Amino acid sequence: MPQLSSRAAAFPSSPIRKLAAAADAAKKRGTHVFHLNIGQPDIETPPEFFQAIDRAGLRVLEYSPSPGNPGLRQAIADYYQRLGYAVELPQTLVTTGASEAINFAFAAMLNPGDEVIVPEPYYANYLAFALQVDARIVPLATTIEQDFALPDIEAFREKITPRTKAIMICNPGNPTGVLYPAAALEKLQQVCLEHDLYLISDEVYREFTYDGLQHHSVLGLAGLEQHAIVVDSISKRFSACGARIGCLVTRNEELLGAFNKFAQARLSPPTLGQIGAEAVYQLPASYYEGVNREYAARRDVLKAALQAMPGVVCPEINGAFYAMVGLPIQDADHFCRWILDEFQHNGQTVMLAPGPGFYATPGAGANQVRIAYVLKQEDLQAAMVVLQQALAAYPQRT
Amino acid sequence: MPQLSSRAAAFPSSPIRKLAAAADAAKKRGTHVFHLNIGQPDIETPPEFFQAIDRAGLRVLEYSPSPGNPGLRQAIADYYQRLGYAVELPQTLVTTGASEAINFAFAAMLNPGDEVIVPEPYYANYLAFALQVDARIVPLATTIEQDFALPDIEAFREKITPRTKAIMICNPGNPTGVLYPAAALEKLQQVCLEHDLYLISDEVYREFTYDGLQHHSVLGLAGLEQHAIVVDSISKRFSACGARIGCLVTRNEELLGAFNKFAQARLSPPTLGQIGAEAVYQLPASYYEGVNREYAARRDVLKAALQAMPGVVCPEINGAFYAMVGLPIQDADHFCRWILDEFQHNGQTVMLAPGPGFYATPGAGANQVRIAYVLKQEDLQAAMVVLQQALAAYPQRT
Repeated sequence: MPQLSSRAAAFPSSPIRKLAAAADAAKKRGTHVFHLNIGQPDIETPPEFFQAIDRAGLRVLEYSPSPGNPGLRQAIADYYQRLGYAVELPQTLVTTGASEAINFAFAAMLNPGDEVIVPEPYYANYLAFALQVDARIVPLATTIEQDFALPDIEAFREKITPRTKAIMICNPGNPTGVLYPAAALEKLQQVCLEHDLYLISDEVYREFTYDGLQHHSVLGLAGLEQHAIVVDSISKRFSACGARIGCLVTRNEELLGAFNKFAQARLSPPTLGQIGAEAVYQLPASYYEGVNREYAARRDVLKAALQAMPGVVCPEINGAFYAMVGLPIQDADHFCRWILDEFQHNGQTVMLAPGPGFYATPGAGANQVRIAYVLKQEDLQAAMVVLQQALAAYPQRT
Repeated sequence: MPQLSSRAAAFPSSPIRKLAAAADAAKKRGTHVFHLNIGQPDIETPPEFFQAIDRAGLRVLEYSPSPGNPGLRQAIADYYQRLGYAVELPQTLVTTGASEAINFAFAAMLNPGDEVIVPEPYYANYLAFALQVDARIVPLATTIEQDFALPDIEAFREKITPRTKAIMICNPGNPTGVLYPAAALEKLQQVCLEHDLYLISDEVYREFTYDGLQHHSVLGLAGLEQHAIVVDSISKRFSACGARIGCLVTRNEELLGAFNKFAQARLSPPTLGQIGAEAVYQLPASYYEGVNREYAARRDVLKAALQAMPGVVCPEINGAFYAMVGLPIQDADHFCRWILDEFQHNGQTVMLAPGPGFYATPGAGANQVRIAYVLKQEDLQAAMVVLQQALAAYPQRT
């Protein structure tokens, strides 16, 4: 039998999806499972999405242009302009989800062995995409005690080697819920200019900011026009995860050239998703406000419930719809499996994403779990009761 | 400004799409362009595809399971079983088009510097996907004079080095239209077993075979259960290129494990396309027969027209819907641009894919073009008149 590539052998299983079989087994036993393990919102996709597909009345489902339908690209550029960022159509490229956007960004920048500095904990699939081009993620520790704030500039400098090509952030943060203030972005600006590094910013949760706080995009950083790349997606913004429509935005023409070549090789992003996406990018500000209100309320429910649980550490959560939470346990992998395999409360249990999967540093995040507050308040409330009961019943509680 | 990866710098532009700007300019001048450059059929997508999406009445467009919807995977397994190949649901994985399937296959098998032997000319994007994992395509010459038949086993042996990990074929062939007989597959079987190589077979044109000839899948090769991987797609079979639904099929559990991990990293293939795909995989045999009749008639139109043009070499075309044709010219890149930029006949011109883009060997295919016979017979007829007139008018005709 021929041998797998080293890449395939080293490739991690998704920490978010690897408990799927245990969840399925619980469901087969008749237990209801609250899915807080994955960023799959229960919010309705705007009906305009499906109406646009219907109205298109396609008879032949053709490829789109490789960089995406011009109508959608213009709608994306207009969206950034409304946010105050000067973006033109040729500076956008439609991708098959943010996943492909990250894939293209890494492939365009990183030679085998090259390094990307990423604040840790981070979205686990960044590591997967780096491995796909045989590059390395260099984690930069942030802590729950400091609400996962960006470290000082000196901490970045310590991680920089001749192989460092980029810094990547997720803002607002998955899995942390951190929202970087302007001062944090200025640190990144300084260090990227100082060391001539690309700055990749995953901003798919841009609208999910709370307490009146503002989001700052790397697109607004002066002097970083050749360095800044935004990764974006409609998945969360419009609750259209299954559309698989994301995008890349940059002013760097060399990168755009590379992205366009990669895009040609895979022919086209999904045509139906693009038609729906073009429609929802036209939605008025009131759409975002409504969704934001709902998530802010969910966050409040989550925070209140977690703060009432003894031994649970819930940091500030200012953005996205995740919280990286410390539990009175030693081994989150074990706990997250136990709660599916052996626990139920009134016929209900909860699926969480174990913390260690979001850390590259061995042993880090061992007592943490990521909670995605993507369920309606009533369900979230019920899920928190399950969690509280589970922590009380867990034999390895610390 | 930071430096692009070597990969990005070396990445080729798509020979199929690189003349897009010239075609757009011709259209702006009011010239009608017949698109014979790309495998985008004008055949109607089966209405069952759109009806299934409509009937699903989704309110939240969710992620699907990473390896694809179980219903679609079962429909795919059933399809192979109807063809006489024992395939079970877990041996299938739904991908975002055949493009992603090739990407996953290469990523799972090839370390940087590893080699895949591919009969030349080949589908240009194979090179692109190899470059994405820093691997190499090793071309194995086939010739228009011999109707692009698979070379002798000795020719394969000469290309094998310690870095050779796989042989990849496209059967029926894009860009050549070749259909490999059973004897050709037996050669591949022998050499793959002899040297313990993976055998990747791109079979997206499986149903497009003519003159009563049968297709043979690598899934039917005894002893190759751990070596054979099929790349497939609904794009051509159901004229649903924009759905971006493909699949991988193999009995090798190690590979399936790697594919599943890669699939988790990119979350999910497009949900709407999967719903439509599941419906069209249930279509009766009469659907395939109707499409096959139409393409057989188109092939006959093309062949007759080309054979009537002095100096044009049209090889046997037994499968797919492409022909790699020799023209009385020296520089197909120049000719294909000239016919868009400077030529029209009764307000019409034609877009072709220049041959050299399908060869890795420098200078090979210089007088060849790939013609995709994806237009209805009347349009194809008209496009052939344009080509004939263009060849007569071309100043650099040989």
